[in-house]
Amino acid sequence: MELKGHVHKVQYYETDMMGITHHSNYIRWMEEARGQFLDEIGWNYKKFEDEGIVSPVISLSVDYKHPTRYEDEVFIKVNVIEFKGVKLKVGYIMKNAEGTVVCEAESTHCFVDKEGIPVRMKKLYPAFCELLSNMANEAV
Amino acid sequence: MELKGHVHKVQYYETDMMGITHHSNYIRWMEEARGQFLDEIGWNYKKFEDEGIVSPVISLSVDYKHPTRYEDEVFIKVNVIEFKGVKLKVGYIMKNAEGTVVCEAESTHCFVDKEGIPVRMKKLYPAFCELLSNMANEAV
Amino acid sequence: MELKGHVHKVQYYETDMMGITHHSNYIRWMEEARGQFLDEIGWNYKKFEDEGIVSPVISLSVDYKHPTRYEDEVFIKVNVIEFKGVKLKVGYIMKNAEGTVVCEAESTHCFVDKEGIPVRMKKLYPAFCELLSNMANEAV
Amino acid sequence: MELKGHVHKVQYYETDMMGITHHSNYIRWMEEARGQFLDEIGWNYKKFEDEGIVSPVISLSVDYKHPTRYEDEVFIKVNVIEFKGVKLKVGYIMKNAEGTVVCEAESTHCFVDKEGIPVRMKKLYPAFCELLSNMANEAV
Repeated sequence: MELKGHVHKVQYYETDMMGITHHSNYIRWMEEARGQFLDEIGWNYKKFEDEGIVSPVISLSVDYKHPTRYEDEVFIKVNVIEFKGVKLKVGYIMKNAEGTVVCEAESTHCFVDKEGIPVRMKKLYPAFCELLSNMANEAV
Repeated sequence: MELKGHVHKVQYYETDMMGITHHSNYIRWMEEARGQFLDEIGWNYKKFEDEGIVSPVISLSVDYKHPTRYEDEVFIKVNVIEFKGVKLKVGYIMKNAEGTVVCEAESTHCFVDKEGIPVRMKKLYPAFCELLSNMANEAV
Repeated sequence: MELKGHVHKVQYYETDMMGITHHSNYIRWMEEARGQFLDEIGWNYKKFEDEGIVSPVISLSVDYKHPTRYEDEVFIKVNVIEFKGVKLKVGYIMKNAEGTVVCEAESTHCFVDKEGIPVRMKKLYPAFCELLSNMANEAV
Repeated sequence: MELKGHVHKVQYYETDMMGITHHSNYIRWMEEARGQFLDEIGWNYKKFEDEGIVSPVISLSVDYKHPTRYEDEVFIKVNVIEFKGVKLKVGYIMKNAEGTVVCEAESTHCFVDKEGIPVRMKKLYPAFCELLSNMANEAV
């Protein structure tokens, strides 16, 4: 499956007094790109929420490689690093218009219901789990 | 009633590439100060939410008088401009440590339940309504 | 001149515990739309900054008409309300995909150099001033 | 040296539609706590910036242990993990009012001038470097 990926244009309100994008925004772009990714593979995140399932971030790591600035376009590729039905580990590579990697990151998620109880995804969403598992394996 | 008011210290992530506080943050400080104000007069906002009542902003106006910068302390005084039981109009005066007014603002709120249906505040919270009405009158 | 306008897709991080978009984000979308507008009429805002001119917000007013939610697309039309060379007054109409007006707003800006000294725009950028003045007049 | 640490009260605008604090805000609280920490040990970050030195984040990792909610007070302890004069590695432990660890995190920083050229901190700020190195060693 060839995915378009997500493009984020850096906004003025995302800059800080250093004149560059404030580092906290990349975490938000990861979320944007993740939502876009799930949408592209046919599993819109909002639908999960509508069905009572949320997917909080349980950890993340971010490597800032190169600054970005107001009006820069950031191209974000998302890939599945690991998913065996419980924890979803997602990878992100962000490049600027010149192709320079500006940020590499990972985030790990679980799937729980509104009370915080883990959801048995393999049982409830076998097709989703298989798709993500396959994507993780392909990436190796 | 003598109120302490709210103090907000400008954070690095609130600055922009102009080197000053991004203007959108003042709207957030208004919310901080409003919460602090309700808490000080004995009507914690979270309690309203726990009882199923939310108070969305329906309009706001903001006059930016003087820039603020990283590490500035902003002192915010809140007052009730008008409240007759339906729409709450709140005023804000923000000063820096030198006493210079940096921002003046107003926000208007309604009180609705989680389905968006207006709540009859006068009936459900007569003491709250009387207190705010009195504050509005005193201010005149 | 027929302008495309700006589209903002509501992000998860823009929602609050009320389940809707936090009101402070609309101020940020105004900035996005303003930048897009200036770009479309041939006067990219970043170029002004590169030439040492910044355009801080000196006041704004916002009317929230209808809530928006995660994944909603918000279509923002920008128009020039008034510009005689000093203060630029900009109007915004935001609609959701159904065409419902979700927010109406105005912002006023000045043009200053990096030291905060007002810049004589009419002298330095006569074509820009004429274009904006004409747009303001057409709108009447 | 006994440090007070930083306290952050969760704001309404920091919550998301999941009803909890949006995960991106913890990265901002790390910055708040880091600034507070530097201030407490006598090396105000703003002074570095005034002297032309900035300290961008080059990487971070965050483990979200427990959700926080509107009005929660989060107590943040900062410690120096490693500093030999070039890269500063900082640790954060965040607890709620009950003493539950809500988040553990690390961030790594470099010190550069406004052009992005690494600054020889040991030469320019030997006392600062010694203090941080000692703190890193004590922590072992």
